[in-house]
Amino acid sequence: MTVSMVGFDADDTLWHSETHFALTEERFRALVSPWSDLESTSGRLLDRERANLELFGYGVKGFILSMIETAIEVSDGAIPADAINQIVGWGKEMMAHPVELIDGVTDVLDAIGRSHRMVLITKGDLFHQESKIAESGLADRFERVEILSEKSPHHYAGVLERCQVPAAEFAMVGNSLRSDVAPVVEIGAVGVHVPYAITWEHEQVTEGSPDDASNARIHRLATIRDLPGLLAKLG
Amino acid sequence: MTVSMVGFDADDTLWHSETHFALTEERFRALVSPWSDLESTSGRLLDRERANLELFGYGVKGFILSMIETAIEVSDGAIPADAINQIVGWGKEMMAHPVELIDGVTDVLDAIGRSHRMVLITKGDLFHQESKIAESGLADRFERVEILSEKSPHHYAGVLERCQVPAAEFAMVGNSLRSDVAPVVEIGAVGVHVPYAITWEHEQVTEGSPDDASNARIHRLATIRDLPGLLAKLG
Repeated sequence: MTVSMVGFDADDTLWHSETHFALTEERFRALVSPWSDLESTSGRLLDRERANLELFGYGVKGFILSMIETAIEVSDGAIPADAINQIVGWGKEMMAHPVELIDGVTDVLDAIGRSHRMVLITKGDLFHQESKIAESGLADRFERVEILSEKSPHHYAGVLERCQVPAAEFAMVGNSLRSDVAPVVEIGAVGVHVPYAITWEHEQVTEGSPDDASNARIHRLATIRDLPGLLAKLG
Repeated sequence: MTVSMVGFDADDTLWHSETHFALTEERFRALVSPWSDLESTSGRLLDRERANLELFGYGVKGFILSMIETAIEVSDGAIPADAINQIVGWGKEMMAHPVELIDGVTDVLDAIGRSHRMVLITKGDLFHQESKIAESGLADRFERVEILSEKSPHHYAGVLERCQVPAAEFAMVGNSLRSDVAPVVEIGAVGVHVPYAITWEHEQVTEGSPDDASNARIHRLATIRDLPGLLAKLG
């Protein structure tokens, strides 16, 4: 079956995002280092983020709130208000940070847009994602832009229905096995994994991983520049 | 021209929302009362929320972050971490709060659904809005659910295009003149204002208000129960 439509993840696939989270977490670990060593700060922050996901969803604002809670927790309430203000300030920096496209993205979208339908599929904070999409200047290249609260098989099936494309003709490209590859493979589409330099621990697939060399619907590329070649091969 | 499709706002139109914000603000004013009198706390919080809107967008998480910043500001950094933790806790309560439908909503949707196409149009936090829509049990009654980052004339025009309905055949029902009435009237649709008991100050239209008795495309109802009657009159 020929791939007729390609879905693209945005954060860490079209533009840099996780580096900003990692940098902020670095600053955070330094800020609370009087009360907590670097290693256990990261562990407690991740626990807190995971616990908060079902209330706050994905995105910078939830991340900031989780850092504030973690700071208060590890310092046993001793963290001064000024330090908390700093954390909020980092959040604002992240929200306002200019979009930096990943190397090669524009060329690749130019090439694929000539032969395939394209849809942008992101998750997270609606407001922040819309700002980044607008600022990226890439929105017009896509037939649709879909901002989801979660990237489950069910959510992807909804996108394919709205796009009127059969799963067997759809390929999803992204940096997360958990969010971009596993759920689309589950509904019968092709998953193309293009790893980013760093991955948020929550996005790592550990068990029941679909990343099996025997699964012909999963492909891994070293860089997004290799995508036109893969699509040509897939036919 | 006959109205063939009705758009419904959700927060404070289908279910209660602003009461939760008002209640939380009440607690917040008490919390920072050692440093700031009730009146000026409200003013500074509103200023902060407005300044943060373009970075954070609408919703509970931005509200919480604005309260945290205001608390630190009015106390000149003296607010203890425990108090900030309390503010975050209020945010979690708000996010987890059960959806309470406004009186009459189910009957009205039943009645209108028999004669008109219906679409749900909300703004704010994607994750929280989706949770509330799912919990309300009302989603299936609507042909589409549109969660927008902002309710501008441009955003409404996009919804009408996706619904393939001409503006002259569309009526929007909501509690906010700024978000639900003014922008739809601007693009040639009908605006039905159903005020809620309280309105966030930011949503008050003060200047250039379209709320002009001479404007035949604006209607005001005391309760959503009067909507079927109005639609019957409009034809």
